[in-house]
Amino acid sequence: MSPVGVGDVAKRIVLGQKLRSAQLGETLLPKRIALPVFASDALSSVAYAPDEVFIMLAVAGASTYVWSWKIAVAVALVMAAVIASYRQTVHAYPSGGGDYEVATVNLGKMAGTTVASALLVDYVLTVAVSISSGAQYAAAAIPAFLDHEAVVAVVMVIVLMAINLRGIRESGTFFAVPTYLFMVAILGMCAWGFIQMASGSLPDVESSHLDISPQEGWDQPLSTIGLLFLLARAFSSGCAALTGVEAISNGVPAFQRPKSKNAATTLLLLGMIAISMMVSVIVLAKQMGLKYVDPHELERLTRDGGPLPDGYDQHAVIAQIARAVFTDFSPGFYFVVTVTGIILVLAANTAFNGFPVLGSILAKDGYAPRALGSRGDRLAYSNGIVFLAVMAIALIIAFDAQTTKLIQLYIVGVFVSFNLSQLGMIRHWTRALATERDPAIRRRMFNSRIINAIGLTFTAVVLVVVLITKFLAGAWITILAMAFFFMLMRGIKGHYDQVEHELAADETDKALPTRVHAIVLVSKLHKPTLRALAFAKATRPNSLEGVYVSIDNAETARLMEDWDDRNMGVPLKVLHSPYREVVKPIVEYASAIRSANPRGVVAVYIPEYVVGRWWEQLLHNQTALRLKGRLLFTPGVMVISVPYQLRSSQIAREREEREETRVRPGDLRRGRTSNRDRQIQ
Amino acid sequence: MSPVGVGDVAKRIVLGQKLRSAQLGETLLPKRIALPVFASDALSSVAYAPDEVFIMLAVAGASTYVWSWKIAVAVALVMAAVIASYRQTVHAYPSGGGDYEVATVNLGKMAGTTVASALLVDYVLTVAVSISSGAQYAAAAIPAFLDHEAVVAVVMVIVLMAINLRGIRESGTFFAVPTYLFMVAILGMCAWGFIQMASGSLPDVESSHLDISPQEGWDQPLSTIGLLFLLARAFSSGCAALTGVEAISNGVPAFQRPKSKNAATTLLLLGMIAISMMVSVIVLAKQMGLKYVDPHELERLTRDGGPLPDGYDQHAVIAQIARAVFTDFSPGFYFVVTVTGIILVLAANTAFNGFPVLGSILAKDGYAPRALGSRGDRLAYSNGIVFLAVMAIALIIAFDAQTTKLIQLYIVGVFVSFNLSQLGMIRHWTRALATERDPAIRRRMFNSRIINAIGLTFTAVVLVVVLITKFLAGAWITILAMAFFFMLMRGIKGHYDQVEHELAADETDKALPTRVHAIVLVSKLHKPTLRALAFAKATRPNSLEGVYVSIDNAETARLMEDWDDRNMGVPLKVLHSPYREVVKPIVEYASAIRSANPRGVVAVYIPEYVVGRWWEQLLHNQTALRLKGRLLFTPGVMVISVPYQLRSSQIAREREEREETRVRPGDLRRGRTSNRDRQIQ
Repeated sequence: MSPVGVGDVAKRIVLGQKLRSAQLGETLLPKRIALPVFASDALSSVAYAPDEVFIMLAVAGASTYVWSWKIAVAVALVMAAVIASYRQTVHAYPSGGGDYEVATVNLGKMAGTTVASALLVDYVLTVAVSISSGAQYAAAAIPAFLDHEAVVAVVMVIVLMAINLRGIRESGTFFAVPTYLFMVAILGMCAWGFIQMASGSLPDVESSHLDISPQEGWDQPLSTIGLLFLLARAFSSGCAALTGVEAISNGVPAFQRPKSKNAATTLLLLGMIAISMMVSVIVLAKQMGLKYVDPHELERLTRDGGPLPDGYDQHAVIAQIARAVFTDFSPGFYFVVTVTGIILVLAANTAFNGFPVLGSILAKDGYAPRALGSRGDRLAYSNGIVFLAVMAIALIIAFDAQTTKLIQLYIVGVFVSFNLSQLGMIRHWTRALATERDPAIRRRMFNSRIINAIGLTFTAVVLVVVLITKFLAGAWITILAMAFFFMLMRGIKGHYDQVEHELAADETDKALPTRVHAIVLVSKLHKPTLRALAFAKATRPNSLEGVYVSIDNAETARLMEDWDDRNMGVPLKVLHSPYREVVKPIVEYASAIRSANPRGVVAVYIPEYVVGRWWEQLLHNQTALRLKGRLLFTPGVMVISVPYQLRSSQIAREREEREETRVRPGDLRRGRTSNRDRQIQ
Repeated sequence: MSPVGVGDVAKRIVLGQKLRSAQLGETLLPKRIALPVFASDALSSVAYAPDEVFIMLAVAGASTYVWSWKIAVAVALVMAAVIASYRQTVHAYPSGGGDYEVATVNLGKMAGTTVASALLVDYVLTVAVSISSGAQYAAAAIPAFLDHEAVVAVVMVIVLMAINLRGIRESGTFFAVPTYLFMVAILGMCAWGFIQMASGSLPDVESSHLDISPQEGWDQPLSTIGLLFLLARAFSSGCAALTGVEAISNGVPAFQRPKSKNAATTLLLLGMIAISMMVSVIVLAKQMGLKYVDPHELERLTRDGGPLPDGYDQHAVIAQIARAVFTDFSPGFYFVVTVTGIILVLAANTAFNGFPVLGSILAKDGYAPRALGSRGDRLAYSNGIVFLAVMAIALIIAFDAQTTKLIQLYIVGVFVSFNLSQLGMIRHWTRALATERDPAIRRRMFNSRIINAIGLTFTAVVLVVVLITKFLAGAWITILAMAFFFMLMRGIKGHYDQVEHELAADETDKALPTRVHAIVLVSKLHKPTLRALAFAKATRPNSLEGVYVSIDNAETARLMEDWDDRNMGVPLKVLHSPYREVVKPIVEYASAIRSANPRGVVAVYIPEYVVGRWWEQLLHNQTALRLKGRLLFTPGVMVISVPYQLRSSQIAREREEREETRVRPGDLRRGRTSNRDRQIQ
């Protein structure tokens, strides 16, 4: 061993690591930044959930609108229960595995896989629903977009995809500014509305003087069952407001210490804001006389018994409120509509962030290709992002960007995972109680279990309601898709398990090969070949020879002469190949050596040029690549690539290095940001 | 050295080679098979060249048809001169390099590259013209195809592409049957026609009672210059009959011995058949009163001064003759039309065969990606075939499958290479004469030089005529395309030259690395890892350690315990990676070792699973692949893949072996056929 040893190396490694940790650091999020980072998805649903409640109630005419605030309260209650439940989860599972971890640990792998497939489907729907709704707001602000919502939505998804493929530099600011502006906009608008209401000067919205004719079949006086079904449907659409509240439970590691406590507080804050927004919007809308129907059944809106004028556009609920409340102040209207549109796009973006995070967790457990599990596998990330975008676009086109139709597919997945997660938490506490002796802790565990049990009751009821009221309207598609992902993940897991079984080490595997027969592939006598020969010699194999595939006699003679002149000190084996094949003679020669000496190993040295530009790669190493591919199938052979870096390889190296420092979707939610962001925050 | 040495290995190799040569043998073609293999392209032009002559003459009305047989004789003369010239070439250059070799050797690399680009462009046009003409014959036999010729042609190109991608089992029979049938059909038809003519009972063709009104601008009495231009244009279109005669000069190695003599005889035979077919068809057509105009100017055909009935279809010249000659025997008509269609498809197929052959010759000289040069590079072959098909389809669509328009682009390339080739041959003989002393041989060389000089004169005149009459009509596109290929090939050559210069060995390159530091990547303690460790130990490096990237503390602890339990005898280095990166820490560690010891070499052993199915490959080795890619850029590192074959890898291995025995396009023309074919012939 030379004196330049491990110590030196270690020092350099430490230096190297220092450099690296300066490039890419860990920035833990304070609550004021964590709230916007994780809240956009949950808060944005206030942009469409109230609309859906009113649309569902309108089926039987405007008279059912008296129920609207009760439905708002019911949704708020469920949300409160869910928020309370997740506050228990972030304490019990601070590792960021979220519902998937809770279900897997407490209910087993089948439950975990079910949760995972539910979440995958819901990511797709988050993009489709948020962007479709966003396109509606864009149309409210920019009349040219009217009736082209699907096109606008598809373009928006493509832009989001491109941004995420390119790698977006997410900072806390990136989320904080629009999210806080959205809160200010909605809560400010509502507050101003309530002030006007208190002073008796609350204006009516533009649709207040309209009438709604009931849908066909609903024009008789409602039976109790009919009414109940209607209310249940409106309620289950309203529950779309709950999507996204689970995000924080996946992001606990990104919080500042004490992580769990801060996460729980942020969750509470998020819940309070979301509930007050939703209830306020619904109550105000009702008070301001809103009439709102499915935008594709506008003919059901009438004025004084007659049809509406041509070209009447029904604006989203928040847009109508904003226009009325800010009658004399149109910037207020545009501000509300714009930030609502932005928050919807941001909500869709969280799906692009959450998808790779979930993918890497699944990959770690063997339910998804392992490559998804390591950061920086650009290909894996890209495939996931493209997959998400393509699926969302397919849904948008299939449902013509109609939020009302898409919402029928939505939230089934979320509520499946809510349920399994709450059930898992109850199991968790029961198990913990079995061993815990400290009465104070036991009391807290009891309370947590009760909270989770209440959460489970609520979410179970919602799931049943959702399944009953939405199954035929579209939820079956969601369930089919979930089943597909479930089977796929089980299949991948099965494959990995089988391979692991086949690869499990036993005692015979430590036998050393008796001898190493090294062959160096020679195509020409140039620097790469000489380097490969030198490297091969340095390993001192039991035997060493150069191998040349002869295609052309004149060339062969020239090479052999050159070989002798240079006094290589290594014999040169010439394989004749009358049909200009290169790969086959070498593979056969290697197999023959190995068969002659079954306990030995054949080391095949392949000199490779390393070039930088993609078109240069097309011009080189194609044969080496094919040869390596074939040699891998030959037992007892190892393949040694000896690279020779050409000057142009510098280009590719620099490109790789740029690639490594790039921030990837979801980094921020995993507490991982670049140094530059840290300085900004 | 162990006693199981080179002798044993050599024996196995010989055995292996025996087996192989039984699988894929060399079958030299007798003349009776060689003729059809190489003739389809040249003979098939009789299916469209006469039509084009009549179309060009018809521009000034039917009165110019008196010139038709004189043009036929002029074309026949040029063809005779070219055939005589190529008979010299096959004697002088029996290696099969053809025009490209002749031009390169005698006129230099620029001329060679020009010939190569001309041939590349002409392969594309051969496909486009032959298939477009074939679609016309298909429409003559199957009326449903009428007016859909472009679609039919595109479908035919796609089918041809698919067949060639799949790998077609070409045997001599494959070519012989349709080619001989075609000769029988055309020569039989003409003979029967001449018999009828001699007996005074020659019937008229269907278009004989029509009149042709001249094109606008040609309706005044013709000036001498106008007539000359017209005749020149008709002549240059007729010269399309010459394309394909050069094929034999590329295929001399496939002939039975004496190769050159047999090739020359076959060439003579081919020329005589082609000339008699063309002259007979043109003379008969004129005698039978044919009236033939551009199929897209059918309104210029009139009957008794009035327009033709709606739905009149103008059939190809051969179809019209066949219908008239076989008036009472419709199977005769269908036979002629069917075999003509088949021979046209076969002619297009020769382009799919010739393209890879030319590609491999260019690759050998560094003008095309090297991978094209080795047999069995499926990817390279496939890319070439797809490229050819896509270009041909683009032309067919752009020119709506109109043979008349495509023919304007055609033959420029062929005549460029004819000219350079004849010029090269003259140089060749002049050089040979400078050293040759034997008067008998000198006399023969003199004669050969005269023949080539005559050939050059004729082809030079044709090239000038073609350029003058066709430049604006489309030949400029061909010339642009040739320039593009020329630049591309020069660029590739320049790159290879530069790399070769950069790689040229000098004296410093033989320095041996002082020490080998081996690291074995460990992800788990399973069979692949144990095998990699065993192989690494067998190479007895100066230092050896396992390297593990730690992402998860619990897993790391488990692995380290396992490592100790198993008493591996090798230290385990753990690299911590808080951000789940795998590639970067390893690359940095390897660089650090290398920097600490710049004269040493780092050997990185990567255990790899080898799986068989494509989707299994997605699930494995993605990280290893990325790692290898990155390590190649790190100087002083060699990368050793230690494969572990899983059971499923057998599938891929068998697939590879099937792939190797497959016959590829162009094999037959290179004298290479599978054993099965040999038994059939």
